[in-house]
Amino acid sequence: MKNFDKQTISHLKQLARLCRGDILKMTYVANSGHPGGSMSSLEIFLSVYSFANIDPKNPNDPLRDRIVISHGHTSPGVYAVLGRLGFVNIDEVIAGFRHPSSIFEGHVTRGIPGIDWSTGNLGQGLSAGVGFALASKIKGLDYHVYVLMSDAEQAKGQVAEARRVARKFGLSNITVVIDYNDAQISGRARDVMPVNIRANYEADGWRVLEVDGHDFEQLFNALKEAYEDKVHPVAIIAHTVIGKGVSFMENDVSFHGKPLSREQLDKALAELGLENDIDKYIQMRKELPLAKHKQPKTDYSIKIKATPFRTYKDKIDNRTAFGKALLDIVKANLDSETPVVAIDCDLASSVKLDEVQKHAPERFFQLGVQEHNAATVAGALSCEGIVTFFADFGVFGVSETYNQHRLNAINNTNLKVVVTHCGLNVGEDGKTHHGLDYISAPANWLGYKVIVPADPNQTDRVIRYIAGVYGNFLVAMGRAKMSPITREDGSLFFDENYVFEYGKIDVIRDGDTVTIITCGSVVENAIKAADQFKGKVAVLNVSCPFDLDKETLKKYCSGRKVLVVEDHAAPLGLAAIVSKFLLTNGIIPTQFEQIAVEEHAVSGPYEALYELYNLSSNKIAERLEMMLK
Amino acid sequence: MKNFDKQTISHLKQLARLCRGDILKMTYVANSGHPGGSMSSLEIFLSVYSFANIDPKNPNDPLRDRIVISHGHTSPGVYAVLGRLGFVNIDEVIAGFRHPSSIFEGHVTRGIPGIDWSTGNLGQGLSAGVGFALASKIKGLDYHVYVLMSDAEQAKGQVAEARRVARKFGLSNITVVIDYNDAQISGRARDVMPVNIRANYEADGWRVLEVDGHDFEQLFNALKEAYEDKVHPVAIIAHTVIGKGVSFMENDVSFHGKPLSREQLDKALAELGLENDIDKYIQMRKELPLAKHKQPKTDYSIKIKATPFRTYKDKIDNRTAFGKALLDIVKANLDSETPVVAIDCDLASSVKLDEVQKHAPERFFQLGVQEHNAATVAGALSCEGIVTFFADFGVFGVSETYNQHRLNAINNTNLKVVVTHCGLNVGEDGKTHHGLDYISAPANWLGYKVIVPADPNQTDRVIRYIAGVYGNFLVAMGRAKMSPITREDGSLFFDENYVFEYGKIDVIRDGDTVTIITCGSVVENAIKAADQFKGKVAVLNVSCPFDLDKETLKKYCSGRKVLVVEDHAAPLGLAAIVSKFLLTNGIIPTQFEQIAVEEHAVSGPYEALYELYNLSSNKIAERLEMMLK
Repeated sequence: MKNFDKQTISHLKQLARLCRGDILKMTYVANSGHPGGSMSSLEIFLSVYSFANIDPKNPNDPLRDRIVISHGHTSPGVYAVLGRLGFVNIDEVIAGFRHPSSIFEGHVTRGIPGIDWSTGNLGQGLSAGVGFALASKIKGLDYHVYVLMSDAEQAKGQVAEARRVARKFGLSNITVVIDYNDAQISGRARDVMPVNIRANYEADGWRVLEVDGHDFEQLFNALKEAYEDKVHPVAIIAHTVIGKGVSFMENDVSFHGKPLSREQLDKALAELGLENDIDKYIQMRKELPLAKHKQPKTDYSIKIKATPFRTYKDKIDNRTAFGKALLDIVKANLDSETPVVAIDCDLASSVKLDEVQKHAPERFFQLGVQEHNAATVAGALSCEGIVTFFADFGVFGVSETYNQHRLNAINNTNLKVVVTHCGLNVGEDGKTHHGLDYISAPANWLGYKVIVPADPNQTDRVIRYIAGVYGNFLVAMGRAKMSPITREDGSLFFDENYVFEYGKIDVIRDGDTVTIITCGSVVENAIKAADQFKGKVAVLNVSCPFDLDKETLKKYCSGRKVLVVEDHAAPLGLAAIVSKFLLTNGIIPTQFEQIAVEEHAVSGPYEALYELYNLSSNKIAERLEMMLK
Repeated sequence: MKNFDKQTISHLKQLARLCRGDILKMTYVANSGHPGGSMSSLEIFLSVYSFANIDPKNPNDPLRDRIVISHGHTSPGVYAVLGRLGFVNIDEVIAGFRHPSSIFEGHVTRGIPGIDWSTGNLGQGLSAGVGFALASKIKGLDYHVYVLMSDAEQAKGQVAEARRVARKFGLSNITVVIDYNDAQISGRARDVMPVNIRANYEADGWRVLEVDGHDFEQLFNALKEAYEDKVHPVAIIAHTVIGKGVSFMENDVSFHGKPLSREQLDKALAELGLENDIDKYIQMRKELPLAKHKQPKTDYSIKIKATPFRTYKDKIDNRTAFGKALLDIVKANLDSETPVVAIDCDLASSVKLDEVQKHAPERFFQLGVQEHNAATVAGALSCEGIVTFFADFGVFGVSETYNQHRLNAINNTNLKVVVTHCGLNVGEDGKTHHGLDYISAPANWLGYKVIVPADPNQTDRVIRYIAGVYGNFLVAMGRAKMSPITREDGSLFFDENYVFEYGKIDVIRDGDTVTIITCGSVVENAIKAADQFKGKVAVLNVSCPFDLDKETLKKYCSGRKVLVVEDHAAPLGLAAIVSKFLLTNGIIPTQFEQIAVEEHAVSGPYEALYELYNLSSNKIAERLEMMLK
């Protein structure tokens, strides 16, 4: 914690003037960006980056304070401050802002020194900050977390969820600073959607301070008071003026997302008393190559102890196999450099996190029925050298948290999502609870690998595998108990010696006429059906739908009949992925059919639903019979 | 509003005893379901369904009060009450609960008399209630809306969003009743995730009352007080006991989602002083057919005035064409039986709802940066004989609101989602703002049709088309201005006489060797590329990716080379849909390639991004050249 003496404040004021010029210049040369909010938040940025324990020469110090800019569109302000404080090169910022070859993208980007989380969608930043603050407790590192936000995003529900988690876990090491410029795209914040910010934070147990957000002394005193409060998380409401510092921009909402004209820029720089060197930057930008910039490296090496397999011979559900494997991993790594934790949303006993909850409670975090927040907290935790498992029902862990995972992918997190209760396999809970998109939704996040294990033994191996590999994985499973998959001779297919290999297709039955391509809860039924036509029907278990094995598919699909069987929404599941792969690779089957879920289904025991929606072994066999004719 | 005199209360007590038996019986015969919360909410259900203006003989009366059960897993309690109050047949409920052939599914289902909204995911019900309350204002119908909720779901952020909208629009015709049984799956609500419910509602400007939730007199007085408050929306916190009414179930969280054993059931029915007729229901259930029940009809006929087309000859963005068409429709239908409204999330000037805002302000609703709530409010509005347009950026209107649309689809809503700023066409705002899943995400909702118009003229026709057809549509477009699509002779392709036909593929260029399949913002570039190889390259505009035209695809793909060009995430966009369609229909191209977005992209002007990600006319032409070799 630094002190803000008179000299420092005078220096900061000088920097603010420079930064205002930088903001106007970079948005001008880019011909896009958000100057208005950048200028209202400017003194906040300068204060926080000066006050926080963060060193431009060692920006990745594990002991540094973490800073999340939740209103990521104020990137010009953030980049200017980082430039003027020596984190990055200010000329590169101004010339390169929003250029393809520049790291200084439209919204703040993780990996730039001083930026701990990529944002752009409003409302997720506080959850990320909560994740970082929780990580400090888990890893025993004493750092503070600053989350800077806009007033408009206070309306987002996820913010309320994050507030409650901060309070529940006593995260007094979080300080929020809200840029209350009372201006958003559609007018005054209080008119667009009235939010009683103070009352909302206080209702959730936070302490609230209010300051003039352009007064360094007030900002410093509030930051100090917040830092010294070891009981409450504190929110500082900083009253500011949009476009602050340039007379004709102040209080004009139209400058929210619009750069100045050349004439306006010249006038503004003159008013700020700054040299007008815009032509230099125009020239520098012209010389930038039309190329994609390189993403900064943000992953880390996972150092955990491997754990021995468990092998199941009797009927059991995949969920239980997951819970047991996870507990093994968590326990073996209680003192590891990369601890392993479990995040729950009030479903521990169903998603089988109760094993960890009971036997390693310090590695279990109950975040309540607040899935949006939980998915982001988990993502941020996973960036901090903590292997993070987030388990939930399919409909919550995939559909409800879709956009949180998308932002996690953008942040190159290291999250392990395990979704149970996928597909019609859920049964009686009915259509709202039949999560049917565990393949097709994650495919859109561009940065998650999906694994759909076929049985408890494969589940066991998969969970142990993903714990040790950096990156986002989503493992999807059903709800019901099942018999382990066996070979024709009755021996376990995924036996004691089986090692999971990402991307490998398991040929569970061989046959020469029809090839069934399947995964997950219905592999069992596909095998039963195939066994009625011995030697004619091959069964391929494709547990890694995003990374297909060309050789195996060529052998089993080219010139044969193919039937895809999946307990998944029909439009864009395994069949669509496989189709595109086959056509693109010139592998042409003589016939191609799909059994999948075409509509939101009714309630009923899962066996009944499989019968009604053609996924039972009976119905699959009927289809095979027709295809074999 | 009915009175609760002594006789009524005595009658209700008698019904409560019967309903408790019904709950235990139906969950027993179904061997699943949620008895605990059903029993804590029971007096609330009985009070509200008795107090509200709703008639079992005319359950669809437009003037009836609306009732939303947000904690949909308490369906046994709701169904029992509906049975005992004469809305449905109680024997059918008990025997059929959660059976495929029965309408009485696991979670409450819209279309059952007395149920206005299907739920199951917690936290969305209040938004639906807000939608119904807003509809009463728009349609000038004087009814009240009751939203019954659990305590656990108070943690969900969307609830806070909905509260603020209720207050902003002065929706004093909403009453919320919260079953505060302080019990959820993982233990006491206050331990799982502490929520100060009273302070939260009050912070958002609601009035809060507290009652004993098993005391009919207190419930009645509170409902009356809430009804008579014409200034505030009111929340009634009803303190209850989970498992209420059966000694061994009370305060035992394990009965949240678990039916009784036979022994427990016998004991409970005896304790309740009820006839033990369970064998009758077991027998009835055995006789139910293994068949899907018929969904009740919940759509309505749209009666709006058609509006004349606008035709664009110069460069313009699709967004503007949308905004102008929508204003035409709104204005022409100000007095129509089916009014047309626009829902905005603080992006009116960008998504071009500002036209409606300015010229028909009574049809414009500003719901702030609260997309989850807005999507559900819009869905519920659309059920009330109001054609509802919800416009947003792709990343918010698709990715952020994914699970809200999924529940809208389950509710068979009549929502028109228009997403602008889709694809790399967004340009400089960067990866968080490049909405790349406008085809692949809605495909999973099972109940939305997607249309991706090629230019402003097609956009104009599409908007007018969807306004007049019942059902959920999502129309996706980019951000940039573009020239209207023309024929080879330079005349407008979508000219004054063009009528949009859902599912039709537009053959924009003919050619005999390669067929480009494309849609949206890149159609323009595909045509420019094709025009470099006259007669060799056909260009098909597939604006309706979910409903493909077999004849056209057969003609243009069978035995030809196919190149899919899409400004969409690569894994599961147009190429995947077309591949599956081709293979399934035995239409085999000789070569199949795709240009699409493989990774989260950088910032930059959209033309630069199209060049870097191979979607420029140059890059497409290069690919064509290789394919034509």
